[in-house]
Amino acid sequence: MKIGLLGGTGKEGRGLAARWASAGHQIVIGSRDPAKGDNAAAAAAEVVVVCVPYSGHAATLRELAPQLDGKIVIDLVVPLAPPQITRVFVPDGGAAALEAQRLLPGARVVGALHHVSSVHLADLAYPITGDVLVCGDDPAAKGIVIGLVGDLGMRGLDAGPLANAVALEAMTPVLLYLNKRYKRAGLGLRIAGLPDGDPERVPEPSPELVR
Amino acid sequence: MKIGLLGGTGKEGRGLAARWASAGHQIVIGSRDPAKGDNAAAAAAEVVVVCVPYSGHAATLRELAPQLDGKIVIDLVVPLAPPQITRVFVPDGGAAALEAQRLLPGARVVGALHHVSSVHLADLAYPITGDVLVCGDDPAAKGIVIGLVGDLGMRGLDAGPLANAVALEAMTPVLLYLNKRYKRAGLGLRIAGLPDGDPERVPEPSPELVR
Repeated sequence: MKIGLLGGTGKEGRGLAARWASAGHQIVIGSRDPAKGDNAAAAAAEVVVVCVPYSGHAATLRELAPQLDGKIVIDLVVPLAPPQITRVFVPDGGAAALEAQRLLPGARVVGALHHVSSVHLADLAYPITGDVLVCGDDPAAKGIVIGLVGDLGMRGLDAGPLANAVALEAMTPVLLYLNKRYKRAGLGLRIAGLPDGDPERVPEPSPELVR
Repeated sequence: MKIGLLGGTGKEGRGLAARWASAGHQIVIGSRDPAKGDNAAAAAAEVVVVCVPYSGHAATLRELAPQLDGKIVIDLVVPLAPPQITRVFVPDGGAAALEAQRLLPGARVVGALHHVSSVHLADLAYPITGDVLVCGDDPAAKGIVIGLVGDLGMRGLDAGPLANAVALEAMTPVLLYLNKRYKRAGLGLRIAGLPDGDPERVPEPSPELVR
């Protein structure tokens, strides 16, 4: 697929670009300076990923709304209130992804990839162990994004309606707190009780297998 | 310790009572009918667990505020808007635990145990695999609760300030969605990248060990 990355010159965007490119997708990277390249990235791609900082989220989407009409927009932006990045910050719209859908009524907004460390993404050989929770109100768009998550080398799980982006985005400051508290980098989330592999196929495990 | 359970006759409360009792703690169970026994449970215990439905949360705490003054209050209540229990519902106060702290300014409120299935809790032989994220603004109270989580047979992790209860509570509808979507029961959360055991002691793992 042709994937555009808005704010793709940041660490997260670069890691996504490298992994998707190595899986055979065509990548169009927009700069964090919207005038420079986000416009082209939005116009050319079938799927557009928003990875700008939250401070530039609304302005970027407002400007690119015409180019994003009808497209799948993956929003992985996490609202943070620096310097307190280890404390949940709920924006006026509840979640960045909900704000995105309101700013882009014609787009198919999907929230995903909030818990994947840019450090791990950039290291293509690193086996990322966390699950990627994917939410959205358009089931077909959600299915395509779950497939794209698989192409990154991770497991995407359907996490419900776009309203559930509130939970997914709010978990990121918690993970940043855990990184600091337990002196780790790039901790992620995993669904406990769901064994590795395709969640649609594996049977209910026995307690022994889960452990 | 002497642990009081408000709403302890519900499924979640019964499971907690059985597990803590078998670890040697003394349990005082209050009924879901506040007049019947919550008062005694609140007055007698050193640590009080709130496991009433969200619809009765504020009223219960308002009534028992004098008995809860100065105590550790573990709030595991999740705000839900039935029948849509698989969609995040953010209450006016942001989180039940934040509302509790406002209603009980003299108590040491800790949010925890939002992601533990009552089905698994009730089966004492079941090895629960998820991590228990514990948040609060009183570090000593949080440490005691992390110890009590260990007595339940699970790992408690310090998840930051009480404000982070927004994320922990909001994740429960997401887990309920995943249960339904992938035909499971009692899915939980696990922190990816943090190996089993004491998170304060284990060293940074190599990617091979993580996998």
